[in-house]
Order: sequence, then C-alpha cells, then structure tokens
Amino acid sequence: MSDEKGALFCGEVSQMQHVYGAPVRVRYADTDAMGVVYHGTYITYFEVGRNETMRVLDFPYSQLEREGFLMPVIDVEVHYIAPAHYDELLTVYTGILETGPASIVFGYRVEREEEHTLLTWGSTRLGFVDKTTRKVVRMPSELKERLER
Amino acid sequence: MSDEKGALFCGEVSQMQHVYGAPVRVRYADTDAMGVVYHGTYITYFEVGRNETMRVLDFPYSQLEREGFLMPVIDVEVHYIAPAHYDELLTVYTGILETGPASIVFGYRVEREEEHTLLTWGSTRLGFVDKTTRKVVRMPSELKERLER
Amino acid sequence: MSDEKGALFCGEVSQMQHVYGAPVRVRYADTDAMGVVYHGTYITYFEVGRNETMRVLDFPYSQLEREGFLMPVIDVEVHYIAPAHYDELLTVYTGILETGPASIVFGYRVEREEEHTLLTWGSTRLGFVDKTTRKVVRMPSELKERLER
Amino acid sequence: MSDEKGALFCGEVSQMQHVYGAPVRVRYADTDAMGVVYHGTYITYFEVGRNETMRVLDFPYSQLEREGFLMPVIDVEVHYIAPAHYDELLTVYTGILETGPASIVFGYRVEREEEHTLLTWGSTRLGFVDKTTRKVVRMPSELKERLER
Repeated sequence: MSDEKGALFCGEVSQMQHVYGAPVRVRYADTDAMGVVYHGTYITYFEVGRNETMRVLDFPYSQLEREGFLMPVIDVEVHYIAPAHYDELLTVYTGILETGPASIVFGYRVEREEEHTLLTWGSTRLGFVDKTTRKVVRMPSELKERLER
Repeated sequence: MSDEKGALFCGEVSQMQHVYGAPVRVRYADTDAMGVVYHGTYITYFEVGRNETMRVLDFPYSQLEREGFLMPVIDVEVHYIAPAHYDELLTVYTGILETGPASIVFGYRVEREEEHTLLTWGSTRLGFVDKTTRKVVRMPSELKERLER
Repeated sequence: MSDEKGALFCGEVSQMQHVYGAPVRVRYADTDAMGVVYHGTYITYFEVGRNETMRVLDFPYSQLEREGFLMPVIDVEVHYIAPAHYDELLTVYTGILETGPASIVFGYRVEREEEHTLLTWGSTRLGFVDKTTRKVVRMPSELKERLER
Repeated sequence: MSDEKGALFCGEVSQMQHVYGAPVRVRYADTDAMGVVYHGTYITYFEVGRNETMRVLDFPYSQLEREGFLMPVIDVEVHYIAPAHYDELLTVYTGILETGPASIVFGYRVEREEEHTLLTWGSTRLGFVDKTTRKVVRMPSELKERLER
C-alpha cells in the first residue's frame, strides 16, 4: 500500500486524506483470555472508524445502501503494535489512502486516547456492488465528488 | 418455563424432547479478560445447539428459510453455574420444551464434555414470520409433524 | 423479577433506580443475515449500559477490578419487542432493580433513539467474587454506599 | 509474504507445510446484514484453523499456554474472493509459511466444502512472549522440533 508520492503507508495520519478520529470505548466483549483486546476486534473498530469518516464526509454508508449499493471488503491488513485493555478509550483515525474507478482504500491508526500510544494500524480495500444484482459497479459519482473536494 | 407435567425447567436433559448434544470447542474469540467464556457467547452456543437439533430432526433451519420463513427469537434466559475456558470441549444439549401454534421453546444445557460439569442452562422462545412480509405466521405444518413424531 | 412494591419488572424506566441512558450506534458487525441486530448482540449492549451506569455512579467497573473484585453474570433474561438495524442510534437505559448482600440486579430498556420505540428489555443478576481466589464475597461497602445515596 | 522458493503466497495449499483442513459450520452470529459472513469473522475462522493445525502437530496452543507462553498476533492479512452464507460447511486449510527465531507465519485458505470454491485466503504472523513478564522470547524448542520433522 503506497500513497500518492509512492511512500509505503505505515499508519501515519499525515498519509491519509479526509481523516477523522472516532472515539471507541473498549467493551468487555472485545477482550480475550490474554487480558487484552482480541486481535479480530480491531476489524470492527476499523468498521466504526470507516463509518464515522463517511458520515463526516456527509455520505454515510447507510445512505449508500439506501441508494442501492453495497461496499464489500476485498482486502484487509492489520499490524499490532501494543495491546488495548477493557474500558480504555481509543481513537480510530480513519482516512482515504487511494481511490480507483471501482474501489477505495481506507487507512487506519488506532491510538489509546490518553497518551496517544499507537496500538494498531492497517488498511482495507473496498469495492462497490449493486445491492440487487451483486455485480461490481463504479464508485457512485456523488461519493467521488465528495472525495475530490 | 414449565414442562408438560408443570414442573419448572431447570436444565435437566430429561425435561426436553428431541434432545441432541452438539459438540462445541471454545475459541479464543469466545473468551474475555476474566479468562473465561464471555457470558454473551452462550447465546451463540445455544444457536449452534438449536441448529444441530433441527438438523437431526431432519428439518434444518436453513431449509425453513429457503421455504420462506424466519424464526426470530422472542425471549432468552441464561443461568450461569460454572465457567468454561479456552479450548475446552463442551456439549450443548438442546431440545424442545414447549410448542404453541406460532412459537416454539427450546431448552439448553451446556456441559464440559470431560466430566459432565453443568456450566449453563437456559431457554429461548422463537416465533415464525413470513420472510417477505415479516408478519407472524403459524408454525409450518411439516415442522409440526416432525415434532409430534 | 419484581421491584420493591412487588410489581413485575417489564422494562419501564420508572421501575429502575440510578438510571442512565447510554447511546449505542449499531455496527455492521452487530447485524445478521435477517438484516437486523443479532439477538445475542443485546447482551453486549446491556454490558455497555451497565458500564456507563456504574461510571455515572462514580464507581466504574474497571475501578472495582483494580480493587480486586470481579462481577460475574449469574442470570440473564432478554425480551425482544422490535428489531434494530445497521447505523441506527439506540439508547440503553440501565438502572438498579435489586441489591442483595452479595449480588445486584440491573434492568435494561433499549429504545431506538429517534422515536423512542421499545426494542428490547431485560435484566442481569451479577455476583461479586475475589479476583484472586474467585470465591464469592459481599458487595464492596463503597459501592453499597453509592447505591444507597 | 513469500515461501522458501521466494514465490508470493497466494493461498495455495501446496505453498504451506504441516497443512490441516479444519471444518467450520457458518453460524447465524457469523453473518451480517449483507446476508453473508461478516469480513471480520474470518479472523476467528483463521484462529480455529491455527488451533486445529497445532493440535494435529501434537502441540496444542492450550498446552503452550500451560507451559508459560503466549502467542500474540503481530500482523494479519485477509483477501476476500467469494462470500460464504449461513449454515454452509467450510474447510479452513491452515499451515506454516515461515518460521523465525521468535515468530511463525501461518497461511490460510478457506473453501466452501461442497464444491471447493475459494472464499478467502490470508496469513498471520505470531510472536512468542512469556506469559508472566509479557516479554518477547524465542520459539519453545519443543515446538521448533515438531515443525522441523
């Protein structure tokens, strides 16, 4: 995953566009028997971050679904730096890394809110499909315009 | 919740009909920071048990959906007796406690397979709705006949 | 479950003490193939509500753990009235229904925030155990005092 | 991620060593409102596959924990090819891609069991830490020997 200048994404907020930091409180359900947040839970934290970034872009994902589109995830990568614990307040910084005619790559950086420790970072590539036919389609032009502003 | 003779259900296998014991291996994802299975996870174990009991009845829930029905859960109760831990093999005994014209009550008893310790027990009431209209309907007659055998 | 006047709890906010309404946004991960929130997810929403009510009582559960206690769940019941959907904003009203020397019963009422539709209600009984020995202990006196204010 | 001959891993069973195919039945809880398995659920399917592959290697992860080690996940990647649905039976092929002095990379290939359709593939890098100190340690020599057989 490289940004516009060709540099590899490594979880820096400055490498993302349209970044928003969504707060997430760690639930007991999110933890595992190691006493920390289960590694799979971060996929859900990324989902929360993506959701809130799209809302701030004034194009919530739920609206996209109402307009007849779905955005299935194509690729995910997550890198784990430090553990999070029950009841900690996290910030999920989420922004755009790349856009293509029929896909979009979101970047993520999860910090513990208190002292800004980097916990995990990663990216997800999502496509666009027609909700009824489930066939691949281009990015809705309205979303494209929002991203180009 | 009482059985046909009016006795309260208290997780005894003998109080259920059409009972089947489904094996479930505890996943790391199922545990929490207390080092035991998260209390909400048992709802999913009950779902696995219900699924396998319906399959043994030769009426898998997936078939019911294909025939145009859904079975939403109306009530749940769970009682926690002893904790389960990562990688333990459990048995989820699931059977029928009651049937009504438009609902069915499943009972559950979860044991650690090794020494048959009772871990949790509970029940769920499910209704029947038309998949398209989402309106309440009667129990499909084919399922009714299976249960009366 | 009955309140102090002996009336059965049926999800009314007025039947609970120390009530707080915690906001919860439905995540995609919370939903299932019926297109609605999975019934097991409400156990986690109840956990979020309980967590925030204890924080508002100035006695966060994480502090209780730091002081050497755990609060395992003993019984759960949930009643499902209407479904919730992806991205909806819910309010989880959580309060105290009963306290005993070594247990506490929380009540819950989950509404869709927009038009206050009742979605689910329920209760959980929790005990107190020593974090190290895992033996049952009495409710910490400091928490007892908070609840009696 | 490249194998011993330097070829990129792309989910082929032949690229992995010590491969085992673990069966997984899709639960309702695993699905989301798109009607398919939630993308984050595959992280848990990978965990199940890893668990069973280590058991077949006669070195179950639970034994490793009893001997005082933990294996935290350092990196995850998942690639989504086709969706899975409720009640489908999947096979999670899991094997070793790489080993280092203090880490191990597992590869995964998830197929629908019925017609061997490739659904997802991916990899996870795990480290070894001392359970008490949480400091990085070398791979236990007993596990190393098992892998070299």
